[in-house]
Amino acid sequence: MALTAGPRPPNSVAAMATAEILTQSGTLELPEALPLDCGQSLPGTQIAYETYGTLDAARGNAVMICHATTGDQHVASTNPRTGKAGWWQRMVGPGLPIDTNRMFVICANVLGGCLGSTGPASPGPDGAPWAMRFPVITIRDMVRAHVALLDHLGIDRLAAVVGGSMGGMQALSLAANWPGRVDKVLAIACTAAMPAQNIAFQEVGRQAIMADPDWQQGAYYGTGKAPDAGLSVARMAAHITYLSEASMHEKFGRRLQNRDAKAFGFDADFQVESYLRHQGVTFTTRFDANSYLYITRAMSYFDLVEEKFGDPGAGLLADVFTGTQSRFCVVSFDSDWLYPTPESRKIAHALNAAGAPVSFMELSAPFGHDSFLLDVPALDRVIAGFLG
Amino acid sequence: MALTAGPRPPNSVAAMATAEILTQSGTLELPEALPLDCGQSLPGTQIAYETYGTLDAARGNAVMICHATTGDQHVASTNPRTGKAGWWQRMVGPGLPIDTNRMFVICANVLGGCLGSTGPASPGPDGAPWAMRFPVITIRDMVRAHVALLDHLGIDRLAAVVGGSMGGMQALSLAANWPGRVDKVLAIACTAAMPAQNIAFQEVGRQAIMADPDWQQGAYYGTGKAPDAGLSVARMAAHITYLSEASMHEKFGRRLQNRDAKAFGFDADFQVESYLRHQGVTFTTRFDANSYLYITRAMSYFDLVEEKFGDPGAGLLADVFTGTQSRFCVVSFDSDWLYPTPESRKIAHALNAAGAPVSFMELSAPFGHDSFLLDVPALDRVIAGFLG
Repeated sequence: MALTAGPRPPNSVAAMATAEILTQSGTLELPEALPLDCGQSLPGTQIAYETYGTLDAARGNAVMICHATTGDQHVASTNPRTGKAGWWQRMVGPGLPIDTNRMFVICANVLGGCLGSTGPASPGPDGAPWAMRFPVITIRDMVRAHVALLDHLGIDRLAAVVGGSMGGMQALSLAANWPGRVDKVLAIACTAAMPAQNIAFQEVGRQAIMADPDWQQGAYYGTGKAPDAGLSVARMAAHITYLSEASMHEKFGRRLQNRDAKAFGFDADFQVESYLRHQGVTFTTRFDANSYLYITRAMSYFDLVEEKFGDPGAGLLADVFTGTQSRFCVVSFDSDWLYPTPESRKIAHALNAAGAPVSFMELSAPFGHDSFLLDVPALDRVIAGFLG
Repeated sequence: MALTAGPRPPNSVAAMATAEILTQSGTLELPEALPLDCGQSLPGTQIAYETYGTLDAARGNAVMICHATTGDQHVASTNPRTGKAGWWQRMVGPGLPIDTNRMFVICANVLGGCLGSTGPASPGPDGAPWAMRFPVITIRDMVRAHVALLDHLGIDRLAAVVGGSMGGMQALSLAANWPGRVDKVLAIACTAAMPAQNIAFQEVGRQAIMADPDWQQGAYYGTGKAPDAGLSVARMAAHITYLSEASMHEKFGRRLQNRDAKAFGFDADFQVESYLRHQGVTFTTRFDANSYLYITRAMSYFDLVEEKFGDPGAGLLADVFTGTQSRFCVVSFDSDWLYPTPESRKIAHALNAAGAPVSFMELSAPFGHDSFLLDVPALDRVIAGFLG
């Protein structure tokens, strides 16, 4: 049974790839500043990652998994901060759809994150935390860091890149901007350009954080205070969007929390209120508020056409994929109202128009946007089948 | 042309009803404490209201309009606080679907509100604002205040009660709990029991307010501070739920606000961000945060079966309407995801099962939940036709 090793010092990966243990943690420190879409370069960039399985001699069995907004690199191993199982433990492992007996799985904490990769909580050039001096990053910047990691691991071409939600955007961005670097692209429950409604929800989350006086213009590190109240509200609002109305009805309905009757007060009378408050509070124990600002900003900014051509009006989505050598699989869920099926259909149509091989499936699952993380056997079959 | 008179002293209504002007403001002070569902009674209750048109000699042409969460009594006259036109000016007036040439229209600020009716900002028995000492109220309590107003106006039976969203809940509650008091009931874009997802959004709004240190446990009156930041976030989150994804896409898309390119910062780059921030900030100039807490609490609590039988499991929705003498019209909008058509269909089915005359229509309109307030000619025709 593979065990998760503790964090390694930067650039410990060479030792790791040849090690016999199946699960390993690494932190890469980039030797040069990372160029960013905003025009700045980020010095001292660290990329924290996990790998599972063994890279084969031809270096051809690597699968990169890209995590979602508040995910992390612990895709199939215990998260050391929370003590919880990996977020896709059901999908990644020996004999599972992403089979670590055959594949070498890589998952890196995104740039801007707070689980080991460089983000606003990391020390800047002057040794003090970047805080809001951290440059505003994009989805492509996150992918640029992933590509640097692949370079470091000596992986010229991924067998596949897989991601749901923000992870799907990274997968598409990798395929579009580094077309030679990946064979199969599996984009789940995502979009090629963030829709207005999602931008709106992301803005609410940011405003909730920035409205909290403990945010202190982002310079809360070391003050003993953090905008936990604002971050909690942001998480509560976002969490609703990850579920479906039907699943909330099924899971909570109007059931009361540990009481027989309404209390005629402002405590959490309903289970759904108690659940949401719990989601909000526990989130603050594992996530940095400034990371939440930067990551949601990157999502709001995401537009594949703009990434590729510098202007959102400078081309069609199909043009982004012209000449691609990748094969694509695009998946949506019928109960997902945050990244609904039409967003995936647009991607599939564009890929078709570009002449790329693409299969597109809307799966039926009751859990809303979170379906990609939950028990949806149809998704397991799609992933296993597509990765082969 | 009718002009809005200024606020009148309490109990000025008798003079008003016989006046020749078509639009009049009044404030009723109830002579006795108002009994509430929580078991308490509210002393000194004031009910601020507007009327339009003239009550006929038989007192049979009265139509009560119930306003939504953040609405007010200024349904067809300029709101003195904002200087803006009445919120349903397009629907209520001479020759309009709710025709003030023939009908005597009444609209009261809800109990718990902040536009003249008694709410948490009103002085309590000790002369200081109630703040969070204000009792938690229900939709039925709001209706109880409306019924007291009808008693005072000498109106035994309304020709109709009309409301959208929370106004629709009041209309249903009036019909269910005071079955002899209304002939026609028009309930638009509402529910008979608040669904879990809506409770969740309401809870996010309340938590945003209560997370703001300037809320001061609700005792912010007279301190020179108010939880404007929290209230603004609450409004932003709620506002998204009032629109449809399609209407947000149509109205804003990913268009930038007064700039040619993304600023790589946290200002409002996108029009939708700027719009939402504006909605949040302006809301704080017209609404009291504690009122928002109490009114959304009343909505979360709303369950017609529980209102009628004291327990949500003590009967069917159809039982609520057994023996009703009212006629009903239930309307939903196909783009409304906050109070979607199945919620209205449940009401219609229950009314059918109770043997009540009911017509049920899902109207096609692009504006989401807000469709009932906007330019939807089909709704005009439905209302004009139903009211006759």
